[in-house]
Amino acid sequence: MKRKVAVVVTARPSYARIKTALKAMEAHPGIDLQLVVAASALLDRYGSASTVIEKDGFRIASRVFMLLEGENPQTSAITTGLGLVEMATVFENLKPDAVVTIADRFETLATASAAALMNLPLVHVQGGEVTGSVDEKVRHAVTKMADLHFVATAKARERVIRMGEDPGRVFVTGCPSIDLAAEVSRLPGNGFDPFAFGVGPTLDLSGPCLVVMQHPVTTEYAEARRQAMETLYAVRDLGIPALWFWPNPDAGSDGTSKAIRWFREHESPQNIHFFRNFPPETFLRLLARCSCIIGNSSAAIRECAFLGVPAVNVGTRQEGRERGRNVVDVPHDRRKIEEAVRFQLGHGPYPQDPVYGDGQAGPRIADLLATLPLSIEKRLTY
Amino acid sequence: MKRKVAVVVTARPSYARIKTALKAMEAHPGIDLQLVVAASALLDRYGSASTVIEKDGFRIASRVFMLLEGENPQTSAITTGLGLVEMATVFENLKPDAVVTIADRFETLATASAAALMNLPLVHVQGGEVTGSVDEKVRHAVTKMADLHFVATAKARERVIRMGEDPGRVFVTGCPSIDLAAEVSRLPGNGFDPFAFGVGPTLDLSGPCLVVMQHPVTTEYAEARRQAMETLYAVRDLGIPALWFWPNPDAGSDGTSKAIRWFREHESPQNIHFFRNFPPETFLRLLARCSCIIGNSSAAIRECAFLGVPAVNVGTRQEGRERGRNVVDVPHDRRKIEEAVRFQLGHGPYPQDPVYGDGQAGPRIADLLATLPLSIEKRLTY
Amino acid sequence: MKRKVAVVVTARPSYARIKTALKAMEAHPGIDLQLVVAASALLDRYGSASTVIEKDGFRIASRVFMLLEGENPQTSAITTGLGLVEMATVFENLKPDAVVTIADRFETLATASAAALMNLPLVHVQGGEVTGSVDEKVRHAVTKMADLHFVATAKARERVIRMGEDPGRVFVTGCPSIDLAAEVSRLPGNGFDPFAFGVGPTLDLSGPCLVVMQHPVTTEYAEARRQAMETLYAVRDLGIPALWFWPNPDAGSDGTSKAIRWFREHESPQNIHFFRNFPPETFLRLLARCSCIIGNSSAAIRECAFLGVPAVNVGTRQEGRERGRNVVDVPHDRRKIEEAVRFQLGHGPYPQDPVYGDGQAGPRIADLLATLPLSIEKRLTY
Amino acid sequence: MKRKVAVVVTARPSYARIKTALKAMEAHPGIDLQLVVAASALLDRYGSASTVIEKDGFRIASRVFMLLEGENPQTSAITTGLGLVEMATVFENLKPDAVVTIADRFETLATASAAALMNLPLVHVQGGEVTGSVDEKVRHAVTKMADLHFVATAKARERVIRMGEDPGRVFVTGCPSIDLAAEVSRLPGNGFDPFAFGVGPTLDLSGPCLVVMQHPVTTEYAEARRQAMETLYAVRDLGIPALWFWPNPDAGSDGTSKAIRWFREHESPQNIHFFRNFPPETFLRLLARCSCIIGNSSAAIRECAFLGVPAVNVGTRQEGRERGRNVVDVPHDRRKIEEAVRFQLGHGPYPQDPVYGDGQAGPRIADLLATLPLSIEKRLTY
Repeated sequence: MKRKVAVVVTARPSYARIKTALKAMEAHPGIDLQLVVAASALLDRYGSASTVIEKDGFRIASRVFMLLEGENPQTSAITTGLGLVEMATVFENLKPDAVVTIADRFETLATASAAALMNLPLVHVQGGEVTGSVDEKVRHAVTKMADLHFVATAKARERVIRMGEDPGRVFVTGCPSIDLAAEVSRLPGNGFDPFAFGVGPTLDLSGPCLVVMQHPVTTEYAEARRQAMETLYAVRDLGIPALWFWPNPDAGSDGTSKAIRWFREHESPQNIHFFRNFPPETFLRLLARCSCIIGNSSAAIRECAFLGVPAVNVGTRQEGRERGRNVVDVPHDRRKIEEAVRFQLGHGPYPQDPVYGDGQAGPRIADLLATLPLSIEKRLTY
Repeated sequence: MKRKVAVVVTARPSYARIKTALKAMEAHPGIDLQLVVAASALLDRYGSASTVIEKDGFRIASRVFMLLEGENPQTSAITTGLGLVEMATVFENLKPDAVVTIADRFETLATASAAALMNLPLVHVQGGEVTGSVDEKVRHAVTKMADLHFVATAKARERVIRMGEDPGRVFVTGCPSIDLAAEVSRLPGNGFDPFAFGVGPTLDLSGPCLVVMQHPVTTEYAEARRQAMETLYAVRDLGIPALWFWPNPDAGSDGTSKAIRWFREHESPQNIHFFRNFPPETFLRLLARCSCIIGNSSAAIRECAFLGVPAVNVGTRQEGRERGRNVVDVPHDRRKIEEAVRFQLGHGPYPQDPVYGDGQAGPRIADLLATLPLSIEKRLTY
Repeated sequence: MKRKVAVVVTARPSYARIKTALKAMEAHPGIDLQLVVAASALLDRYGSASTVIEKDGFRIASRVFMLLEGENPQTSAITTGLGLVEMATVFENLKPDAVVTIADRFETLATASAAALMNLPLVHVQGGEVTGSVDEKVRHAVTKMADLHFVATAKARERVIRMGEDPGRVFVTGCPSIDLAAEVSRLPGNGFDPFAFGVGPTLDLSGPCLVVMQHPVTTEYAEARRQAMETLYAVRDLGIPALWFWPNPDAGSDGTSKAIRWFREHESPQNIHFFRNFPPETFLRLLARCSCIIGNSSAAIRECAFLGVPAVNVGTRQEGRERGRNVVDVPHDRRKIEEAVRFQLGHGPYPQDPVYGDGQAGPRIADLLATLPLSIEKRLTY
Repeated sequence: MKRKVAVVVTARPSYARIKTALKAMEAHPGIDLQLVVAASALLDRYGSASTVIEKDGFRIASRVFMLLEGENPQTSAITTGLGLVEMATVFENLKPDAVVTIADRFETLATASAAALMNLPLVHVQGGEVTGSVDEKVRHAVTKMADLHFVATAKARERVIRMGEDPGRVFVTGCPSIDLAAEVSRLPGNGFDPFAFGVGPTLDLSGPCLVVMQHPVTTEYAEARRQAMETLYAVRDLGIPALWFWPNPDAGSDGTSKAIRWFREHESPQNIHFFRNFPPETFLRLLARCSCIIGNSSAAIRECAFLGVPAVNVGTRQEGRERGRNVVDVPHDRRKIEEAVRFQLGHGPYPQDPVYGDGQAGPRIADLLATLPLSIEKRLTY
């Protein structure tokens, strides 16, 4: 009898962090995958992950529209509540043997609460990390509702156990996003043309080039716009071809979006091309060939550690996250950002660092999901 | 400038666990109390806590109807989701400086998530304890979303800190329910007649008498009815006058309710009187004068430790909770329950044990709420 | 290709009003029935229609828990809103070709709104009638959202057309509840013992006997309890064996329920037996053999017209509804109720009156659903 | 004692249709205005009506975030359900004596259902009109839930009465949007520069110029993009300076938005400037001075009748709506649109036509709201 495993994907970046596990689960004889796609993962405005997911050959078992417009703390709360209401109905219909939730976006509280309250074993992927902002509360709250933990690093495992979880139920699998990075790093360069997508000038990528990805930091809502402007000016002033990827729909992203729109209208930057909707592999491919990544994306910390890509991490969003040697940290200050990028361009690529995984996380997760005992009873270990 | 402190009460027993703190907050010059009454606390069927609250002189700032009928795991999840949606609107209107949530009922996830996602400092009262069932997940998840922790025991404080919370933000205040017990133990006996309420025969309370309170254990949903029957038969067979209090609206309480209804129709027990709707003080008064408490209520473990009332704790619901010396544990077995009650009747009252508080929790909590620095930024301490 | 027809049943009485149509739909080669059971139809407290439905051999495609506890106008509104949220997800999964909604309970607004906003053809059964209370608003609002109308009477058809609906889309099918009445009236008397169910004394049904069913009138919320008391005293004073059926979960039913509970505890009526949970046929069977029906149930007006059972209709709830000759109307006054019952007992059975149907509504509805053109475009005819 | 009147505004165009009534209500000694701003009226993406409302000097009593992202029929339904849930809480807090809902957008079902189910008198402004699409169902369903009707035209009054409403409760007030048009037509031309806003080239408005506003038609969802393209090409090919206003957030607007974005990127139209966020008066001012309005906005039918502005109405959205002489109807065909615009430019301004109001609707509505008897009991008149 196959185990029915419901995996809930609520955003484009979450998909990248679970994709190779989904592939391995689908191929596994002991697992019946029930893929639930929800929230911004269903929406064009945020890169329409659902379209990418179907192109990748997955069948979507259920779609949950739950994202409220407004992008402020109140709509985050209502979105999560609505998601919890709907997820209860979805789980009642799918009757999964286990539910998998990924990382620490606010709406994962809906998935985790629904599973916990409905007595469904909950599996948390990527717990035990430390960052800034409300994600920190969400991540550890999900840990305390979860029955199994698949973490990315040894340090993360130690933290989950110290929070009172049973060591026999916490596994270092590595992060599936590193599996994708490993695949990409094995591929030859090819003739893919990013400029068929997005908006802005066509750039020359034969020399040094930059990738930028900057998300708003939810608890500094009002600052999102100003922070984005610092990075926009820094990148414009560097004058090096830059590929800029649009932020996620967190509270505050409207500030970031506005900054970008205003900058494009008024400053017409000649060295920046803006993108919204990229399949994870293509993004990784661009990452693998770029000279430096700038912003506050976790890709700079995680995938780029494995890929050896120099990174300039801006602001507090990744504070506390384990790092490889490839990262330089700077505040939201256009001059400091510029300097750090020039330093990294001078340094060049770093050696591979397996801190977030060795490229085998997906199959490892699928095997564990198929074979571990499932239970909903747990208790603080101390 | 007074601090606006929103306290969310979602059930009759939660009210008993916060009442003296509410009194102290109302009297405190530095606090503007915003009392939110929600879920079963609004409903007749569950003892209409809201009526008691208003009789006690509190003004209710907002009422949140959120409890779905059905009393199963799915309706628990939907109730919580709906509560989160509504609580977001309520907090938006009240604009509190801090939000207080009590203990570990499933619907406290709604309060905690709303506060965390809306960047409101969250205060958790009675974290750090260990019990069975889904409450265990809920309690510690709320801890990980909370910014301040007011716990009942030294051991609870230690646990909260071990989960990675800043020791400077975890305070042993004792449990306000003990304050009520202390007040009651100072009152003279009086002519109050419980039999003006509830249903069943009028009993002679001049000799030994029992108090019974048995809640369904959520993750053993199907068993609730059978478990209730064991206690019902044990109490009937003991033949001693017994005051039985109706359970809370958890998933499964329908099983318990059905057992009680069936037992009344078919066994017409001559020594049991059944109650639904009791103000906390009256309940405590009855508790203080009874010879033994039976069931799985936390009152047996907490208030009765202070009051020295012998307790027979049935089943797993209170597993892991710290105890005073007054408690004997038994499984769901009518013979074992009977035996243990007879042992306790033979033993008689125990000495006062301050394990859950010294009777000053309420004022202590109000002072801390008025003066502690409030913040929404936190991070695992390891 | 079969048409997928979703039928939403939200309460025990609604099931009686659609059951023979469901049977006919299931047997129809052109229809794929998708039965959605929701709200009080899922709950024990209200007669657990879902259990009856499954015993009758139907497969339930989806269950929608949506009924909020509280039974007041606010919870009615929240229940309907929550139902609309969930129904949207259910319809998205079932992808019906048409949606059928029944009569005029408040929660049918959820079904109707979901269908209308999701561009699904909506079929309304039992529009065009006139009654008191909020049902009047709900019923006609549903008519204005519906694309096809299957009404019970010629007069109802005329009203629907006068409201601006296309006469070619309004059909007098009769009410399926009359089909059940017709079946029952053809059955021989049998040895069924109602006193195996419900609570109260066993009664002698060999002589005259009464059936009582009284619902609260939503817009007279506060009066529900007093109104119930008048009928309770009248029936007690008549001294004739009476079978009393519990009310529906409308706003205010708590008042009615309380009156019944109080009356049982304090007046111990020796001639009344109380029931909650009856399959429609059994209810009809009791109706067919009783001497008079009392209260404000529409069964008195509809089924009893066909069966010729004398009826005493109390209060305003059925105001404006077409009647056969079997009905005497009285206000909420115990003396007036008594008098009218005595008059009806003196009169005895009335001749059959087909005003609400000829017993063939079910097959007629199934045929129309299988063959009528379906469309979501409509426009006022004037 | 002042009457508390809650007015719910859910979108920018609804605000224009009630603004002068709000002004009159605020000035009225018998009315305490409770302004509830909800759905897209709170959002930047849709013109941030709430900002305009506050600039106009109104105090917002409550904000209801309810709009789900996704803009498809399912999210429309969920949005309405969520709105109903939240509106119930808002009305419970505000305790209005009457609730006013405007026109026929899908989310007005939430306002109307909440008021009806909570026994609050419901006032419907702008019922009795006839158009295409789902609005037709929504509008008349709201009429059947409403207790008072303030309609724009004599014909609308006749229709509402024919639907079975009491003639004594249906009043021709005219449409408040015409009050704004009347004000604007009395103002002198001035130096306002629209090109400080929006995106696209600065245009010469000294000669003929066009205003365009095209909304997606919800029940033709898939066609929205194609339909927008026809109008885009027609306007581009006409070569006359055109001011294009962004559509509302209906199901399908994403199709329209995409068409506009694609057209701007690929066709760079030199004669079109695009706008999102306009206060109603400024829009009317531009309307009053333009040579022709194109698209399917009701402003072309209503305000422009009063203003005498020639209109080219495209497609079915305004089908069935009463017209003045200023309107030429065409299908979604770029050639037909061009021809009709040229005809209207040749014809020039039309005489004032008071079909939708004489400019005094606002004060008339305020007086009626302050003085009419309020009731929630109604019944079909036939």
